[in-house]
Amino acid sequence: MGPLGRHGQRSEGYYMFPKLEGEIAPRMRFQGKEVLTWSLNNYLGLANHPEVRKADAEAAQEWGLAYPMGARMMSGNTKHHEELEEQLADFIKKEAVMLLNFGYQGVLSIIDAVVDRKDVIVYDAESHACILDGVRLHMGKRFVYKHNDMESLETQLNRATKLVNETGGGILVITEGVFGMSGNCGALKEIADLKKKYDFRLFVDDAHGFGTMGETGAGVGEMMGVQDEIDLYFSTFAKSMASIGAFVAGNKDIINFLRYNTRSQIFAKSLPMPLVIGAKKRLELLRTRPELKENLWKIVDALQGGLKERGFNIGTTQSPVTPVILKGGLPDATGLTHDMRENFKIFCSVVVYPVVPKDVIMLRIIPTAAHTLDDVEKTIAAFEAVKSKIDSGEYHQIKEFAEFNS
Amino acid sequence: MGPLGRHGQRSEGYYMFPKLEGEIAPRMRFQGKEVLTWSLNNYLGLANHPEVRKADAEAAQEWGLAYPMGARMMSGNTKHHEELEEQLADFIKKEAVMLLNFGYQGVLSIIDAVVDRKDVIVYDAESHACILDGVRLHMGKRFVYKHNDMESLETQLNRATKLVNETGGGILVITEGVFGMSGNCGALKEIADLKKKYDFRLFVDDAHGFGTMGETGAGVGEMMGVQDEIDLYFSTFAKSMASIGAFVAGNKDIINFLRYNTRSQIFAKSLPMPLVIGAKKRLELLRTRPELKENLWKIVDALQGGLKERGFNIGTTQSPVTPVILKGGLPDATGLTHDMRENFKIFCSVVVYPVVPKDVIMLRIIPTAAHTLDDVEKTIAAFEAVKSKIDSGEYHQIKEFAEFNS
Repeated sequence: MGPLGRHGQRSEGYYMFPKLEGEIAPRMRFQGKEVLTWSLNNYLGLANHPEVRKADAEAAQEWGLAYPMGARMMSGNTKHHEELEEQLADFIKKEAVMLLNFGYQGVLSIIDAVVDRKDVIVYDAESHACILDGVRLHMGKRFVYKHNDMESLETQLNRATKLVNETGGGILVITEGVFGMSGNCGALKEIADLKKKYDFRLFVDDAHGFGTMGETGAGVGEMMGVQDEIDLYFSTFAKSMASIGAFVAGNKDIINFLRYNTRSQIFAKSLPMPLVIGAKKRLELLRTRPELKENLWKIVDALQGGLKERGFNIGTTQSPVTPVILKGGLPDATGLTHDMRENFKIFCSVVVYPVVPKDVIMLRIIPTAAHTLDDVEKTIAAFEAVKSKIDSGEYHQIKEFAEFNS
Repeated sequence: MGPLGRHGQRSEGYYMFPKLEGEIAPRMRFQGKEVLTWSLNNYLGLANHPEVRKADAEAAQEWGLAYPMGARMMSGNTKHHEELEEQLADFIKKEAVMLLNFGYQGVLSIIDAVVDRKDVIVYDAESHACILDGVRLHMGKRFVYKHNDMESLETQLNRATKLVNETGGGILVITEGVFGMSGNCGALKEIADLKKKYDFRLFVDDAHGFGTMGETGAGVGEMMGVQDEIDLYFSTFAKSMASIGAFVAGNKDIINFLRYNTRSQIFAKSLPMPLVIGAKKRLELLRTRPELKENLWKIVDALQGGLKERGFNIGTTQSPVTPVILKGGLPDATGLTHDMRENFKIFCSVVVYPVVPKDVIMLRIIPTAAHTLDDVEKTIAAFEAVKSKIDSGEYHQIKEFAEFNS
């Protein structure tokens, strides 16, 4: 249990398990007060887009939330599921798509399905928890490479190649389109280039890239011009698409194989109809309203540009995910979170040890198309204020926060 | 890939990935024709209960399907989530409940969270895929015992006890309340009694028992009078509750531990609000309308009694899950499925090798409170007709089905 976990009782409902109330928007309520929120992955502002809300309400009215009530293979298939798959495949320019009832278990089971003990998995060290869980299920060898480090990847591909030459298996390389903590992109171009030198298949989890990256919003593969080199492309509906569920795309053979071999999809219910119909509407808006992504990037550029100008360290982000990296300990993290919420009325996620090193506090800012340039200004000003309080040790003077050192 | 999988192209949309259309009910449409359906786990008929449909529609209208859009710990908590947890805990008489965003990944991550490599898992051989995946994540020893066989369980508990005496770890026994294929109950009473002799914790997946078993519908633990001996009680919302999502219950300490340590819950979105509000309504009906469970059991008793009277082998079921076990090969399975759907207008799941032995065909019938005694009679008569065709080898005479032998 992490440090904040150990302080669970004291911090629950405030630092941990907070309740944000009201419609999903840049302004929500926290403990009765209006706050400016930067912590929801509602990148394109679709969560409360009037057309989305109308589609969601009408689909739930027409179908209820139970239908179709069965695993896809047995009794959980509908023409809407198939249509959404076709529309997604068309949009991201892949032959075939399989919907997933939930992203986390989808990734885990896809990895599980496509490898056996003869195969070797080579994966990026900063991969999301669901990828790591999938890798943990693997009975064969797995080699981790340093985050986005092509030298390290080549070292591991060499090891893996030697191994599979003996076992007769294959190599699966796993990375992400956008890494959710740092915001930097997977080095997909460089990795794809390595296919000329090594024989492997490439799985890309583009949860944060789908809808936000690439000319049409088809993700980081599109942006880097390597969509065809991605053998399995995954995205969740939980970010830009503002829903739950997910999908995986590839050629017809691999997707057909997955339909019959992905345990969490064969042995659990398919996505309920209103979520499928709601996803169709979201995809339609994502495809036909480029102004949503333009608005997002206007805010991203203002936020990231403004932060850099005022001397903030925002790491190596290449995407909307904006980490603000400060030096400080747990009393500072606690103090600044409290200060931001109570005095500056700003709500964002604060990431502490063990996710980041002990002396680092990371504010993780998620800009959306629904934010304004005013919101950006207000937020940067607040960051400047709290940073100076950290630098002067002010939060350590306050008993309530200093106690978090214990 | 199983035999039907290999015939995927020919069978897709019919034997595999069929589309059942229309409202979830005993009468639905399959390929344009009305069929009597026995394949949805809508035990209490709640999927289309007018009060459920109203609650679902109103909640989607009020909240959309996106809210609250975040992991529970970060920004995905609401008072409705907490209220549903309290109501579930109160109903099943456990100290605390944690909601899960999806049952499959919930079970998997709970098992993962509560054991480390010093611990030993002892589990029933017929456990559901999600339990097996959780066990597969375990780095320590795992011992499987023969399904519901207490002698085998004791053998494994002895082995496990010796091991944990060395490692200093603990033992987790995993079983189910109702096994979804056979319909028989986990031997929870006998297992609980073994706690006097061995030191272990008990995890019970009661997906099919919640709402259908026990005096109040609180499940198999209630029915067998051993609810207090269950350390972790799990159920999905995908059966009686006619929705998606799930929950786990136990004492306050273990649930609080799980809130901070269940990877698929910490690193993925919480259950959307309309599903939470919809679950509250379903739970209310499940608690306050005992006639729903009475109707279910009236149908179960008529169906199972009638089948036994006419000489059918329904195995050892003790629950609504009703397997009808026939002798026959794949041509028979294909022929009878086609015959049932086209001529008798009955739709049920047909389970073949490798889930059951090669010469066995299992029809898996799920009765619900919404079926009628007439439906039962019609179905038993159809079973008699197809059984006599199997016995006379009739389906083997038809080229279309005989080819499935290839």
